[in-house]
Amino acid sequence: MKNLLETIHSPQDVKNLPLQDLPRLAYEIRRTLIRTMSKTGGHLASNLGVVELTIALHRVFDSPADKLIWDVGHQSYVHKLLTGRLDRFDTLRQQNGLSGFPRHQESEHDAFIGGHSSTSISAALGFARANRLKGDPHHAVAIIGDGALTGGLAYEGLNNAGRSPNNRLIVLLNDNEMSISENVGAIARYLSVIRSQPEYFKTKDTIIDFLDAMPVFGTPLKHAMSVTKDALKRSVYQKTFFEEFGFTYMGPVDGHDIRQLIQVLERARSLCRPVFVHVHTVKGKGYTFAEQNPGVYHGVSGSGFDIRTGSSPDTGGPTFSSVFGDALCELAGEDDTLCAVTAAMREGTGLGDFATLYPSRFFDVGIAEEHAATFCCGLAAGGMRPVFAVYSTFLQRCYDELIHDASIEPQNLLLAIDRAGLVGSDGETHQGIFDVAMLRTIPGVRLYAPAHFDDLRAMLREAHRHTGLCAVRYPRGGEPELPAELREVCLNYTHLQNPDAQLLLVSYGRELGPVSAAAAILRQKGIPTSLLRIGRLLPLDEGMLPSLLGYRWIFFIEEGIRAGGVGEQFGSLLMDRHFKGNYRCRAIEGFVPQATVSASLRSLGLDADSLATWIEKETRG
Amino acid sequence: MKNLLETIHSPQDVKNLPLQDLPRLAYEIRRTLIRTMSKTGGHLASNLGVVELTIALHRVFDSPADKLIWDVGHQSYVHKLLTGRLDRFDTLRQQNGLSGFPRHQESEHDAFIGGHSSTSISAALGFARANRLKGDPHHAVAIIGDGALTGGLAYEGLNNAGRSPNNRLIVLLNDNEMSISENVGAIARYLSVIRSQPEYFKTKDTIIDFLDAMPVFGTPLKHAMSVTKDALKRSVYQKTFFEEFGFTYMGPVDGHDIRQLIQVLERARSLCRPVFVHVHTVKGKGYTFAEQNPGVYHGVSGSGFDIRTGSSPDTGGPTFSSVFGDALCELAGEDDTLCAVTAAMREGTGLGDFATLYPSRFFDVGIAEEHAATFCCGLAAGGMRPVFAVYSTFLQRCYDELIHDASIEPQNLLLAIDRAGLVGSDGETHQGIFDVAMLRTIPGVRLYAPAHFDDLRAMLREAHRHTGLCAVRYPRGGEPELPAELREVCLNYTHLQNPDAQLLLVSYGRELGPVSAAAAILRQKGIPTSLLRIGRLLPLDEGMLPSLLGYRWIFFIEEGIRAGGVGEQFGSLLMDRHFKGNYRCRAIEGFVPQATVSASLRSLGLDADSLATWIEKETRG
Repeated sequence: MKNLLETIHSPQDVKNLPLQDLPRLAYEIRRTLIRTMSKTGGHLASNLGVVELTIALHRVFDSPADKLIWDVGHQSYVHKLLTGRLDRFDTLRQQNGLSGFPRHQESEHDAFIGGHSSTSISAALGFARANRLKGDPHHAVAIIGDGALTGGLAYEGLNNAGRSPNNRLIVLLNDNEMSISENVGAIARYLSVIRSQPEYFKTKDTIIDFLDAMPVFGTPLKHAMSVTKDALKRSVYQKTFFEEFGFTYMGPVDGHDIRQLIQVLERARSLCRPVFVHVHTVKGKGYTFAEQNPGVYHGVSGSGFDIRTGSSPDTGGPTFSSVFGDALCELAGEDDTLCAVTAAMREGTGLGDFATLYPSRFFDVGIAEEHAATFCCGLAAGGMRPVFAVYSTFLQRCYDELIHDASIEPQNLLLAIDRAGLVGSDGETHQGIFDVAMLRTIPGVRLYAPAHFDDLRAMLREAHRHTGLCAVRYPRGGEPELPAELREVCLNYTHLQNPDAQLLLVSYGRELGPVSAAAAILRQKGIPTSLLRIGRLLPLDEGMLPSLLGYRWIFFIEEGIRAGGVGEQFGSLLMDRHFKGNYRCRAIEGFVPQATVSASLRSLGLDADSLATWIEKETRG
Repeated sequence: MKNLLETIHSPQDVKNLPLQDLPRLAYEIRRTLIRTMSKTGGHLASNLGVVELTIALHRVFDSPADKLIWDVGHQSYVHKLLTGRLDRFDTLRQQNGLSGFPRHQESEHDAFIGGHSSTSISAALGFARANRLKGDPHHAVAIIGDGALTGGLAYEGLNNAGRSPNNRLIVLLNDNEMSISENVGAIARYLSVIRSQPEYFKTKDTIIDFLDAMPVFGTPLKHAMSVTKDALKRSVYQKTFFEEFGFTYMGPVDGHDIRQLIQVLERARSLCRPVFVHVHTVKGKGYTFAEQNPGVYHGVSGSGFDIRTGSSPDTGGPTFSSVFGDALCELAGEDDTLCAVTAAMREGTGLGDFATLYPSRFFDVGIAEEHAATFCCGLAAGGMRPVFAVYSTFLQRCYDELIHDASIEPQNLLLAIDRAGLVGSDGETHQGIFDVAMLRTIPGVRLYAPAHFDDLRAMLREAHRHTGLCAVRYPRGGEPELPAELREVCLNYTHLQNPDAQLLLVSYGRELGPVSAAAAILRQKGIPTSLLRIGRLLPLDEGMLPSLLGYRWIFFIEEGIRAGGVGEQFGSLLMDRHFKGNYRCRAIEGFVPQATVSASLRSLGLDADSLATWIEKETRG
């Protein structure tokens, strides 16, 4: 039998297929997803859930003239398969391969970048307004999950998008009843009410007919009844949350019934006004293991899984996240004011055990980092000691809250910044390279960077002792390889002085691995080299500086953005002290594409060999 | 007749007054507000609107045990008058005086800081959860305006707050039908629907009774009717947006009827669960001029106004904001893809004329900076050239959107950053001192800092020509005093070399005023001094550096945060080029309290005299 998927080179090919062939296409897409991701890893469950939906979208809309905007775009794999990227699909999330997210630079069919959550409605509204200004009759379609709908940005988008009846904008809610682990909050509960009452929404017109037909008797009852009827009609007409925002509401629709989906999307498109389409999908649909454990199959690691058994190779060993989780449980046992807060990343941040052991002190606020930060400040002002566990890249969302709510009047808030530094296959949108520079601008922050698990445990304990805004930042995954002299806990700084050295290397966190290895290479080459590791980045203890002024060369190496990083500050402090040697800083100077962390380090010249070569060359000159 | 207000030293005194005296207290409060603000300036209209509401709150709740959290806290003046701050009220917004916002450091009755918008619900939820953990039966009350309710953070707060029925949390909506100029978006429309239909909400119980009493006939009609009745009941019960979030809804209440307010607040308090109280107030209430022009009296400048005529002294002359507005209109006439976007700051950012001249290309998205940024990116991706006019301090809200949506795949977005640098009497929460350091961390940004109006016009035009994320930052108010040689337009840098000088002063933007004056002082003292002004901060043109390496002293002076600022980068670049002279940087190193801009500059050592004294001392050593 002919493989249908292989005949699809563009959305037009989807349109040309006979309707009855679409279920077979869906089957082939699922097979491709499962086969590919069992090898490459990736976001399997969410993509299995949107197979029919994506087919229907390309059947009804004309990408790229119509703009499809995928929110938290890891649900865009099927879209990639249907827009001419099948042949490169096995390069997904790999160096120089397809991105795991929509990237306009990759395809004109990816209308807008989508790595962070809740951006699609605002972006789609921008396209819709641009279309109106240009007189372009095409649509903008935001495809957003129920998890992303908890983000305030999505609400701001809805609030503006429904305002004007002339916006050709469709918000398509892919409601799979989960965000990443499970959904939280009023909106989630509200969606489940709608889902559970399809008969009500289907009988809406009936109700209106019924009220119109209802007889009204003599005065004054007549008047009272008339008011009542009007109020009832209004309340029925304006029923859903989304209608109150000015959208026409359609749904809930079975997200695995292609014919029904096509029908509804065609109707939505024909209205030429803001429409909210509520689609009910099953995360992991079509692969039993993923349907039963969608959380596990949300993001499959690069090592993949066994298709027949569904089991992943044991990735083994503790990670900074798991060590953090254990350490926090220990602290919570000693301090009953300690609370843990996460924005939809309970498992990712290692807080699973904490949630079980201390449920009353555990708060998953959903995808809502701004709220998480300000809520923590309220907890702190109320006498608690909140710990906000958050990925570095998502912490960017609450820069203002960290300044305004946490710092001007300092609150006892501890940030546990996970995924700090390079993250690998998620690429540009998720690299944790801005947190240090961002936090450095905020007066009064105390920031620690552990290099290993013992550091992490000690720094958490130390930060928890302090008042005000404190933070501990640590990388994704396990410990770097470190020489014995760097295995000690370092709560401030450690100057490993080589008495003959004219050369000093300075670094912090995971990058101490490559830096200490570079020092070893240099020493092997007969170049005496000292090492300074910084454990506490903020405030930087200026007491370390006098002992450094005699070096002829100081190299600062940073796995983070250079502009505004600690390297610049360090240089500035040396200048203040009339350092007359040579100072060089190597850090990250732009966005970093997807690749393994070690490949990225090589590209950036931050691996041991590149560093040793560079430093040798510079000092020889 | 005894002055009642003077007898109020704490909320307990409000409780002790006979009920019938409260209207007189309200009258005296209004008189005090108008008299004081006619001299000091301040947020008159919003405070006139909450007089009865604030009295009722202190009558019903026990501050500070109950937490009153004022959102965008410039509506907290009445609260300040009732919590023992009458005697210092004439120091409002002045150096060392009362803050124009709630500050916990000022009074235990100010539960939480509130300068930026939409934070109150999240903070209140933090207090409410802390209370539950401590077994404290007190309430947290968030008082939020309808304008602040358009912010996504407020929605994230609502979505989490209504989740648990055990939170003793009251959200009190102060609905005056405006945000700062006029309210926008679906939520605003929705509130007006509720306001216009009080009879419906009052008849709610009646409707339910009516449905319960309605007879149901034989099968199958019986079944259909039963379904209908259930659906109707659900729809009536769940009517308001806020109820769908899990709140008990009460309102709308007349916000100037003290007795009714007390009644409703007492009921809300007695429920011990999340309650949403919708209060309808009149902005400017009780002062005719303010009622008629609440926008004008939203924020009265420090020069005050004439109580009898309502007229303000002519503050006269153009400002950077007005020049920006004019220049943007001119550009929009030449480029019909140019759009202007503001987050509820049409007048403040000088976009009034633009809105009138180009209504289809003008977008006021309400208080929603995150959405504004991503919406702009959508407009840009759709072929438009959006300009987002925003105060520096509020730009902090969209750091992540600027990275993720605007920069990874660069969009043609121009940020017009108003109120950059010190802002004066608004104090810590509103100083525009972080934008440069923040933008510097984002790869690819192009940033200009005009020193005068000609600069601003030329830089806008220049930035508009460029692709990607560009920004122009300019201060509040008018031009600084500048010597003739700095009046030229500077799109990159200008090195005003004194051939005898061993000393160079470097600066940008408004601070060039004090810096050039300091240079004049030094020259008068016989110290030859060169001046380098930077017009384009990002990317910094490194071509300027070789000619600087011969100086013995370089001083960099910056009206912005030092950590991550341009001064550090400049020093770092000099080190890269083996600069062997002395480099000193003076910038802002913490939060800056309220005071006039010139007084703040003096406190920070950034005025001409302080700079001259410092530099002379340093170079002498």
